Amino acid sequence: MGDLMFRENVCTDDTLSVARILRRTGFFNAEEQEIGISLVSERLQKGLSSGYLFVFAEQNDQVVAYSCHGPIPGVLDGYDLYWIAVDPSCQGSGIGSRLLAYTENRVIGLGGARLYAETSSSALYESTRLFYEHNGFALEGRLSDYYAPSDDKMLYVKRLIR
Amino acid sequence: MGDLMFRENVCTDDTLSVARILRRTGFFNAEEQEIGISLVSERLQKGLSSGYLFVFAEQNDQVVAYSCHGPIPGVLDGYDLYWIAVDPSCQGSGIGSRLLAYTENRVIGLGGARLYAETSSSALYESTRLFYEHNGFALEGRLSDYYAPSDDKMLYVKRLIR
Repeated sequence: MGDLMFRENVCTDDTLSVARILRRTGFFNAEEQEIGISLVSERLQKGLSSGYLFVFAEQNDQVVAYSCHGPIPGVLDGYDLYWIAVDPSCQGSGIGSRLLAYTENRVIGLGGARLYAETSSSALYESTRLFYEHNGFALEGRLSDYYAPSDDKMLYVKRLIR
Repeated sequence: MGDLMFRENVCTDDTLSVARILRRTGFFNAEEQEIGISLVSERLQKGLSSGYLFVFAEQNDQVVAYSCHGPIPGVLDGYDLYWIAVDPSCQGSGIGSRLLAYTENRVIGLGGARLYAETSSSALYESTRLFYEHNGFALEGRLSDYYAPSDDKMLYVKRLIR
């Protein structure tokens, strides 16, 4: 296993890396994968004015995980964690937590004080919820039957310490 | 006072009408006004694939209120009510409730079962919160200090009856 490297710039090839990771995780349906990929495209087209920031985690010159985050329009110092995904070959290795910590420090550097994440209450996303809870996020809201009947939206927040 | 007319198509002039209404209400700062206007522009550029639907309420050939709403990506039958605004000259006349009812019926026609609205807990938005509560919305979540210290995000939902 090579060293883990983090980078914040976005390249054309990242569209392919993100597509590969989202497909391989098995967490996202076709529509969701398309949305995830479209955020990379939008960032490549519009630059930082897209509002989408990325951190890519690379190992042996391959992207193995990434986060997409950005300032919430109209909000003083809150950031959304839009996506965080780890290639299944690397899950359970702590890469997700290290990527999250890197992302949080970046957000703090940009003046952010809170990071928001949303996920589903369904069984498929139990590991996602545990990931947030183990990494200092608190469940602050829950919208019942949001995604579908009996599939609630879980609203998490982490208050960042400068 | 002329009759109230509702229309769903979007014209170039609507950018100006929305700018005028958002400026005149006094509820939105410059950044928020820009976001509101940008949704009309995006709709004009991209059409329905923008994801933004509009209802304009007209009286004497002038737009006096509008709503912007759309299906939530990745959500089975939930719609977001992104914006609803009434020109101050017409507030208190019931136009907001009629516009909301028209919007709800349109969403039902499109297969929507729930309409979500978000607003702030601050004193400025008390009339907005009362508007939602009087029109059948329920407060389902609250994110503390979301917009700014002591300025919470209030998450409302209305379950639509077919």
